[in-house]
Amino acid sequence: MPLPQPALPEPAHPNVDSMLSRKFGKEVANYFSGSPLNRVSFLRPDHAFLSQALKHPSTSFILFNKLEPLIKSGTELAYANFNEVQPIIGTDPFEKTEADVIKEYNSSTYVPQIVFLGLDERKEGFQYKDHYKGQPYFAVDVTPKESVTAAAEALIKDVEGRGLSFSKGRMHLSLPAQEAAIYAEARHLLDWNARNPFCASCGYPTLSVNAGFKRTCPPRDIAPSIATPDRPPCVTRTGISNLSFPRTDPTVIMAVVSADGQRILLGRNKRFPPYWFSTLAGFLEPAESVEEAVRREVWEESGIHLGRVVIHSTQPWPYPANLMIGAIGQAIPDGEKIHLGHDAELEDARWFGAEEVREALQVGTSGIGEDAGPGYKEGGLRLPPKTAIANQLITAVVEGFATGAPSL
Amino acid sequence: MPLPQPALPEPAHPNVDSMLSRKFGKEVANYFSGSPLNRVSFLRPDHAFLSQALKHPSTSFILFNKLEPLIKSGTELAYANFNEVQPIIGTDPFEKTEADVIKEYNSSTYVPQIVFLGLDERKEGFQYKDHYKGQPYFAVDVTPKESVTAAAEALIKDVEGRGLSFSKGRMHLSLPAQEAAIYAEARHLLDWNARNPFCASCGYPTLSVNAGFKRTCPPRDIAPSIATPDRPPCVTRTGISNLSFPRTDPTVIMAVVSADGQRILLGRNKRFPPYWFSTLAGFLEPAESVEEAVRREVWEESGIHLGRVVIHSTQPWPYPANLMIGAIGQAIPDGEKIHLGHDAELEDARWFGAEEVREALQVGTSGIGEDAGPGYKEGGLRLPPKTAIANQLITAVVEGFATGAPSL
Repeated sequence: MPLPQPALPEPAHPNVDSMLSRKFGKEVANYFSGSPLNRVSFLRPDHAFLSQALKHPSTSFILFNKLEPLIKSGTELAYANFNEVQPIIGTDPFEKTEADVIKEYNSSTYVPQIVFLGLDERKEGFQYKDHYKGQPYFAVDVTPKESVTAAAEALIKDVEGRGLSFSKGRMHLSLPAQEAAIYAEARHLLDWNARNPFCASCGYPTLSVNAGFKRTCPPRDIAPSIATPDRPPCVTRTGISNLSFPRTDPTVIMAVVSADGQRILLGRNKRFPPYWFSTLAGFLEPAESVEEAVRREVWEESGIHLGRVVIHSTQPWPYPANLMIGAIGQAIPDGEKIHLGHDAELEDARWFGAEEVREALQVGTSGIGEDAGPGYKEGGLRLPPKTAIANQLITAVVEGFATGAPSL
Repeated sequence: MPLPQPALPEPAHPNVDSMLSRKFGKEVANYFSGSPLNRVSFLRPDHAFLSQALKHPSTSFILFNKLEPLIKSGTELAYANFNEVQPIIGTDPFEKTEADVIKEYNSSTYVPQIVFLGLDERKEGFQYKDHYKGQPYFAVDVTPKESVTAAAEALIKDVEGRGLSFSKGRMHLSLPAQEAAIYAEARHLLDWNARNPFCASCGYPTLSVNAGFKRTCPPRDIAPSIATPDRPPCVTRTGISNLSFPRTDPTVIMAVVSADGQRILLGRNKRFPPYWFSTLAGFLEPAESVEEAVRREVWEESGIHLGRVVIHSTQPWPYPANLMIGAIGQAIPDGEKIHLGHDAELEDARWFGAEEVREALQVGTSGIGEDAGPGYKEGGLRLPPKTAIANQLITAVVEGFATGAPSL
């Protein structure tokens, strides 16, 4: 039984009649974008701000157990308050300045990960300096481990006793758009911190700072088991290194249109259910433009040669750290022959007519592990759901994006 | 004395009259894109292919010393052949399968980094299987260090005796577009390998595989100094981990247009020469769409609120690992007031009229450390050169991209 497909986020300021929207159409906002939070990223190094935000009575905490969020149901996150998380994170984890925290670094002390997500400016209560107000949001890793095992287990027992649970798998694809965006930010950051406990430059353990948005390689480690607290020099300590900052992997995903604009290329791999096809996709490589990556991936996977490529919209995808860059590309007239033998990634790729695709968008969309809708007839084309940018790209094509029809 | 500004790369298949190009205009190809090489990425794990490509008489090697390429002049790369690099890389570094190389991993052995860049299909000679032909390109790190110190010093002495030199700084911004793209691929990969010698997941040293496009965390290390060759489990060895693959950091850069379409917002920081302004820019954060990152950065740096954002074109930027995603955003009518007090990044930001910007594009463009052109008059607006995507975005705006003028 598929969960209901949530509505997509509203594009920013959809009612502003701007020249850009008259020329290019309304902005397409994809699922996992559309966050209501102002991240006030420049306040993350400010421990006084973080400390006040953390302890404010209006503050909402999203709890994660092994990267799965606490939920009320498949379509609603649950939130905790400061009193509930305090036994795990302590009375004030932001009491000291970052400089002091780095100075006192002890790799044998387990520090549960906290991420400051932003301020929901639609809700009053908390205020910092003149400009920054709204309800603060944090994410906290409450996985029972190390020194917080007992406190985390007690908290989990308590929330489960109240009918809440930690999500399993990707049912958060059914969250309302704004909650999905907040969840995506939290999951991406918690995963990045958990995935990178060591410095890739020198191999020593690192420390989370900037409220979860930076990992630093401290020059000293006062863990009792370590004979010499001073560490060797590390290049990440001089100047700015990207190793200290969260990683996001740019990915290209593209609807390919035939030279005559009448057909669309879709592919499938072995893991897809029968009759299910989607757009091609792949990681952007070093020193490629998006347009080049689109042409390379399409040729490698399908043998097709593209000319003009246009970027349509983008989608954050927190499994674990992708930015999906959605594009439409048009095949050149003598480059439409399908050849699957270069890369072995696809099991099949085919040109589909606009009518068949239009029909499938009506009756054949679903998540990859779900049943198709009630109107679907066995043997018909199946496609990804509206929450996938692939669906939005395919829709744009059949609505005339490539063929010169007016852009909304 | 500024070096001449090179021509930009030709967009792919510019002569194809596609529906996409009729609707959206000709594709803008930025500097560092437009590579003539087919990367045949799926052949990188194939050691027989790599071995044959490496030793083919037509093969070109770009040499790097501390990340600086060997050049003939400020506007031309120099290439070495297999015989010249053989004393450094050995007779056949791709003799064994990857599985065997991983099995025999010894962290005390220095292996100079080699990167397979691709095949230049315009040039005949080398062929592999039915489909893959062209002149192979490799990059090799010839920095004198560890076991290759003497061989590398001898090679460097030899090439310098022939009038070649290793570039200093970023003069490769004057390379012809196609060489710049090849250089960018090489630099990005060499830098990534050098920057990530340790596994961020477990802290142990890693090994370059896939001809420079992957780093793996071997399960055993037979270095004589290590008591127990078997290492503890590492999560990067089960399933696919992004830590094993090159990192590219998505960056947003945007020309901001006023609500009436008549003015453009430009900013400057302290490091810019007098009168020099550029577009705003910043890193995309986890779980942001490009459109959201553009709006957040513009608000954080300038206080301006944007509505519709359209992505214009993209540019690889290998210092060290960026993908610049160029966008045009339009301010909402009541969101045009400049406020520099949120983030302290900009020294100044101002709205400029289209006429002043048009004039500056004619007479005031240059690299950041160079003199403006001969027509420039002290006190006039200065702007980045054509090789910067900032220049292309500003140009698009004054040519009517946002205001509904015909595209192209």
